Amino acid sequence: MSSSPSFADVQGAARRLDGVAVRTPLLENARVNARLGGRLFVKAECLQRTGSFKLRGAYNFLSLMSEAERARGVVGWSSGNHAQGLAEAARLMGVKATIVMPADAPAMKIANTRASGAEVVLHDRVKESREEIGMGIAQRTGATVVPPYDHPWILTGQGTAGLELVEQATALGVTLDAVAAPCSGGGLATGIALAVKGLSPSTSVHAGEPAGFDDLARSLAAGTKQKNDKLSGSICDALLAPTPGDVTFPLARALLGPGLVVSDDEVLDAMEVAFREFKIVVEPGGAVALAAALTGKLPVKDRAVAVVCSGGNVDHATYARALARAAA
Amino acid sequence: MSSSPSFADVQGAARRLDGVAVRTPLLENARVNARLGGRLFVKAECLQRTGSFKLRGAYNFLSLMSEAERARGVVGWSSGNHAQGLAEAARLMGVKATIVMPADAPAMKIANTRASGAEVVLHDRVKESREEIGMGIAQRTGATVVPPYDHPWILTGQGTAGLELVEQATALGVTLDAVAAPCSGGGLATGIALAVKGLSPSTSVHAGEPAGFDDLARSLAAGTKQKNDKLSGSICDALLAPTPGDVTFPLARALLGPGLVVSDDEVLDAMEVAFREFKIVVEPGGAVALAAALTGKLPVKDRAVAVVCSGGNVDHATYARALARAAA
Repeated sequence: MSSSPSFADVQGAARRLDGVAVRTPLLENARVNARLGGRLFVKAECLQRTGSFKLRGAYNFLSLMSEAERARGVVGWSSGNHAQGLAEAARLMGVKATIVMPADAPAMKIANTRASGAEVVLHDRVKESREEIGMGIAQRTGATVVPPYDHPWILTGQGTAGLELVEQATALGVTLDAVAAPCSGGGLATGIALAVKGLSPSTSVHAGEPAGFDDLARSLAAGTKQKNDKLSGSICDALLAPTPGDVTFPLARALLGPGLVVSDDEVLDAMEVAFREFKIVVEPGGAVALAAALTGKLPVKDRAVAVVCSGGNVDHATYARALARAAA
Repeated sequence: MSSSPSFADVQGAARRLDGVAVRTPLLENARVNARLGGRLFVKAECLQRTGSFKLRGAYNFLSLMSEAERARGVVGWSSGNHAQGLAEAARLMGVKATIVMPADAPAMKIANTRASGAEVVLHDRVKESREEIGMGIAQRTGATVVPPYDHPWILTGQGTAGLELVEQATALGVTLDAVAAPCSGGGLATGIALAVKGLSPSTSVHAGEPAGFDDLARSLAAGTKQKNDKLSGSICDALLAPTPGDVTFPLARALLGPGLVVSDDEVLDAMEVAFREFKIVVEPGGAVALAAALTGKLPVKDRAVAVVCSGGNVDHATYARALARAAA
């Protein structure tokens, strides 16, 4: 693979993921369409193995490693979806995985990562650097570090969701005016942009971010990488990367339209619509693109628009907050 | 169509529904499989248009009516999923629909039925007979009554979910040992049995029911139609038909294995597993077959089993009860 990832690399990833990743459905709802005055399609990537798109990039990465590298294992750090996706990709390929996770991560996420057979190394989020611990493991064992987003193999793997999405819309006779996906470090959004632009150059592609963590939206507007002021404080726990990636940002500049920024309340409302109308469980970070479409920040009126709901790993208490936003 | 519906009739329904009904995904979860010691597949029919399988049978029925009949409209009575499925099928075919609903039905269900363009006639559940009101409308207007389950065109339409399910399992290289579906009047279960037995005669097919409303399970055991003692009192509001249908019961006797009966608590637990592991929203009545598999009443160990999660139209309060059953 060349250093600048291409549409052909996404197609290659799709061949590797065939029969492994779930071809998640593209859902539509007549009532939502009537309310928005257009056609809104939801790519239900929360139904992916491990409950998020992260399996796609991790599995593609592991597939492109050499046999000798795979024999020495992989290491990653994550408190959330990348941990589970990487652990499951490693299990599917028979590769040993070590995942560095904060000791105060939700018990379920740690248990899920272990259930995929990964060794979980817990660290103190305040006193210890997970990068240092992970790099130390890699140096000691010869394991390969699998990054969460800023790598061509990762982002082209995530882009396979975009290939499917356009193929599924085309099968319905629909040419999409716009596509939007949630964005943290930009792996999913840029991978999807590569796929969508390759199949449908006239379709605009947008990244959604939570308010206060809109580093990509501001970076796109400024033309240079911007940082978030905060490292925590959004309900969207999966979307808190501090700045765009070195690999993802040039792609974002070349391929993405203006960023979409939504509030926590708009995210909770979108989760409730996903529950009530689409019958899918979407986590806060997975709902930002849907929130942009429902609030009109990404216009749907007289258009055909697809949004990726990228994950569904949400705890009961947060979900109850979303349900409480509307009367049943 | 002959009076005794056949596998070929399900295939015919599938042709009519092609491009209309969502081909809902067949989901699998590695953790659930590991826990059960086998392979459990979930047919996510809650992702169907209107949030339940009911669109399939209603659309098939309307497709088989004559043009002259369709011009006079259709009438039905239902407080739940049949109302929404029939109203949407009528909208899709440009047919006028009148739905008799109890005045105390959840406001959302009435609103959803109206959103599909149906005329809703509200009745007093205690003082008035919805059948009489519906039949009166049919006689006055010449509209055709569309029954909720006890008709060959309805049950063969519902059976298309079973065709898809077996085709999807076959594409994964899997021969199913057993299939189970929720059961009220038996339209879904018998339709699915026709489809499954036509494609895979060795697969056993079972109907799931809530405890206290297990008229079909007892009828199958007795060999004659049995009645439920109660008309209400289960969390499974969609599964309260008092007795098997005249069309469905002979099919059930010929095609179904022993019935599966689950408690309200087992249903709530299954809804929570659907939320946490499968990321789909399932209503109580839609979760009975899943509950049977998770509790071992429908054994999964060393087998391949598919269950239909037949609907997702659940209010917030009931859903919150399910989430409260397990710590996040």
